[in-house]
Amino acid sequence: MNAPAQAAHLLPDVHQREVPQALIDAFKARFGERCSTAQVVREQHGRDESAYTTVPPPAAVVFAESTTDVADAVKLASEHSVPVIPFGVGSSLEGHLLAVQGGISIDVSRMNKILSVNAEDLTVTVQAGVTRKQLNDEIKSTGLFFPIDPGADASIGGMSATRASGTNAVRYGTMRENVLGLEVVTASGEVIRTGTRAKKSSAGYDLTRLMVGSEGTLGIMTEITLKLYPLPEAISAAICSFPSIEAAVRTTIQIIQMGIPIARVELIDAHTVRMVNAYAKLGLREEPLLLMEFHGSPASVKEQAETVQEIATEHGGNAFEWAVTPEERTRLWTARHNAYFAAIQSKPGCRAISTDTCVPISRLADCLLDSVAEADATGIPYFLVGHVGDGNFHFGYLIDPELPQEREIAEVLNHKLVARALQLGGTCTGEHGVGLHKMDFLLTEAGSGAVDMMRTIKRALDPKNIMNPGKIFAL
Amino acid sequence: MNAPAQAAHLLPDVHQREVPQALIDAFKARFGERCSTAQVVREQHGRDESAYTTVPPPAAVVFAESTTDVADAVKLASEHSVPVIPFGVGSSLEGHLLAVQGGISIDVSRMNKILSVNAEDLTVTVQAGVTRKQLNDEIKSTGLFFPIDPGADASIGGMSATRASGTNAVRYGTMRENVLGLEVVTASGEVIRTGTRAKKSSAGYDLTRLMVGSEGTLGIMTEITLKLYPLPEAISAAICSFPSIEAAVRTTIQIIQMGIPIARVELIDAHTVRMVNAYAKLGLREEPLLLMEFHGSPASVKEQAETVQEIATEHGGNAFEWAVTPEERTRLWTARHNAYFAAIQSKPGCRAISTDTCVPISRLADCLLDSVAEADATGIPYFLVGHVGDGNFHFGYLIDPELPQEREIAEVLNHKLVARALQLGGTCTGEHGVGLHKMDFLLTEAGSGAVDMMRTIKRALDPKNIMNPGKIFAL
Repeated sequence: MNAPAQAAHLLPDVHQREVPQALIDAFKARFGERCSTAQVVREQHGRDESAYTTVPPPAAVVFAESTTDVADAVKLASEHSVPVIPFGVGSSLEGHLLAVQGGISIDVSRMNKILSVNAEDLTVTVQAGVTRKQLNDEIKSTGLFFPIDPGADASIGGMSATRASGTNAVRYGTMRENVLGLEVVTASGEVIRTGTRAKKSSAGYDLTRLMVGSEGTLGIMTEITLKLYPLPEAISAAICSFPSIEAAVRTTIQIIQMGIPIARVELIDAHTVRMVNAYAKLGLREEPLLLMEFHGSPASVKEQAETVQEIATEHGGNAFEWAVTPEERTRLWTARHNAYFAAIQSKPGCRAISTDTCVPISRLADCLLDSVAEADATGIPYFLVGHVGDGNFHFGYLIDPELPQEREIAEVLNHKLVARALQLGGTCTGEHGVGLHKMDFLLTEAGSGAVDMMRTIKRALDPKNIMNPGKIFAL
Repeated sequence: MNAPAQAAHLLPDVHQREVPQALIDAFKARFGERCSTAQVVREQHGRDESAYTTVPPPAAVVFAESTTDVADAVKLASEHSVPVIPFGVGSSLEGHLLAVQGGISIDVSRMNKILSVNAEDLTVTVQAGVTRKQLNDEIKSTGLFFPIDPGADASIGGMSATRASGTNAVRYGTMRENVLGLEVVTASGEVIRTGTRAKKSSAGYDLTRLMVGSEGTLGIMTEITLKLYPLPEAISAAICSFPSIEAAVRTTIQIIQMGIPIARVELIDAHTVRMVNAYAKLGLREEPLLLMEFHGSPASVKEQAETVQEIATEHGGNAFEWAVTPEERTRLWTARHNAYFAAIQSKPGCRAISTDTCVPISRLADCLLDSVAEADATGIPYFLVGHVGDGNFHFGYLIDPELPQEREIAEVLNHKLVARALQLGGTCTGEHGVGLHKMDFLLTEAGSGAVDMMRTIKRALDPKNIMNPGKIFAL
């Protein structure tokens, strides 16, 4: 396999800007011990869950405890035209946190307060460092929940910045639909607010949605107002094995096309079931499976489940296993939530190069089956999981980071998959973001006119190019 | 009532830019008879459903039949730094179509083709001039529908430009949630595409949602890809009268807070019921009423309807009338759809100054009841309807456009209402847009920092300020 164009893209383009000692001194003076230049701290903040490992870490890490801290840090950095990179929990898969142009990491994990719960309005306002599990734990007594579940216990700030989604998005939407308003520190260190707590608004440009998915390149989100949902009266989960990936996918397509309001429908392929069985001793049938969940009134859940079981059976689905209690449901979902870790452990020392294509539901089988055949032909180990109800799935190609030829195989597979998804009317990234890894794909997908419009907006809002520079597009 | 600050805002600030004869000649050469300078055509395109009547019309109207037409018109206008104002059907309520800085109207109503229906993916791509009723007529055979219903048979381009919503938004969302992708002619006459047909994406800045709601100030949308929904298996509508507006509103709040997936819940006050009875001989009880609709499986619709009837009865709701057949449902909805026309006819020669606040659902009663009392105290005639499930409602104050004192009373009431809504965490406009009428309100709502960010984006993307200038904010 020979793919020099792709290979050239495997390592990010690193142009470290100078971080003057005067700036570090100013940070130390302003933040005291909350500004760290310790090597181990810098290294922790200079990497993420992507397969990039060779970028020098940020020059310093500031632990912000308030919006004012973030604003002051940005103002100081702006004076010296030094990049700032916001950091939540470090669960990016696309290199968002890497200091490819040098600079300062602003860690917002201590900004972890839930500022107000408005249970009557189904809204909550949180600081950016609150994680999704913390949020759901703290609001449990209200009878409400926040459904967006990207797998990792990511920060709400990071989830907003990458327009994250995950298993519940098929019913509840993504961060795009669930962020109502923001407090943002701009590139000049000014604090602005976008949106209101009203459910809808036509008041001017949708700055909220411009910021959601901007990957830290237009501003740093410090407070986020989210929609919440009443905990469903009834929840029922099911696992169903299929004779082939195709049968599982055709079942999914039919469920969606019939408009069944399923809350979750996740695919796990046979490889991955084997890895999960080995990791968590689940004893699942080592066949492709769908994990499903139904939310609603008891009658509605029963009706949805019956219809879905009929559809699955028509496609050869078997071994339906139902889970109604929270404990049983947790056991079933263990398979999905452990897939990534089970895969990583199946090949010691490996990194996963994760794909993230999303296609219109009618094209899901075309996109997925050809890509499975291509991956199998190379012999590369991989895991395959998918939020298939949305047409979104992830291959995780397991590579030894020390072996360029493995990385190249993975990248070539990824390129072929993305080309296929775009040709089918889809996107290169359903939920992970562009980061460092998908800049070329974005250009192909959106076209140079649209990417130039993004660049024009970036230049206008961040004229010194200090907000997480070098991500999404080259500038 | 003395309110000079508001009064100064009653007429838009008109700074006509020169439209050189050379440009008109160039338009005539390019578009032939599809470029009209006839007075009657220009006047038709220089007004809308707002109460503004005194702005000179555009210098010419171009009837575009393709994206290339729009692009060429924008390029010609750009050469001469002359404003362009896109025109769909003219149903704006906020002065969006008025040529406050002069310029050319680009009428897209002939761009009325449905370009592709992807029934399997629940998507459709249309030209900007397609109207919502035309769309639903043409896709009827697919078993799908497009739910957004702002009342007027608006164009999809206009609905996208104002981030419109209407009666079904409580269940199906607004144009914000239902536009998947766009083709846009930029200020330089370049054609770009945003979004894909995939259900979700994290591929760079959300240009789609930046354009949706930008009111023609950042580009002209020429093609729009929308989500569709399966026609519900069962639909049931109900009308219920209440002893007071408060009882109707409290019923609504409880329905929403319980998470009942109601498709429509509309308030009509007793004044407006009287106007509608006079106009359409409906014989409805002249009390505040809620119009509701339930979509889903037969079992789910039955369950929703029973729960809602219980809630309504607890709040004194009575005279429940149910409609299951399409004909019966149409009769019930006549009351809602005729409200505007019935009101206008109740006072010959009047114009309506419409309010559009939207507040978090828990604050709906506070916001609405005080505003009713204020309006009643002035004695001004008005209609009151509301998409109350979203916390959004409209007073339409009926004024004689020749009587400044009536306009002033209406504007003062509007100012008080907006101030109240903002104080309760809401927005000045739930669905009509800012246009000319709410620029001061936007500044109060969003703050100067956020509005400056909007201005910065506008300047960057439209450096000559030719795209519908003078709307949303002063520049």
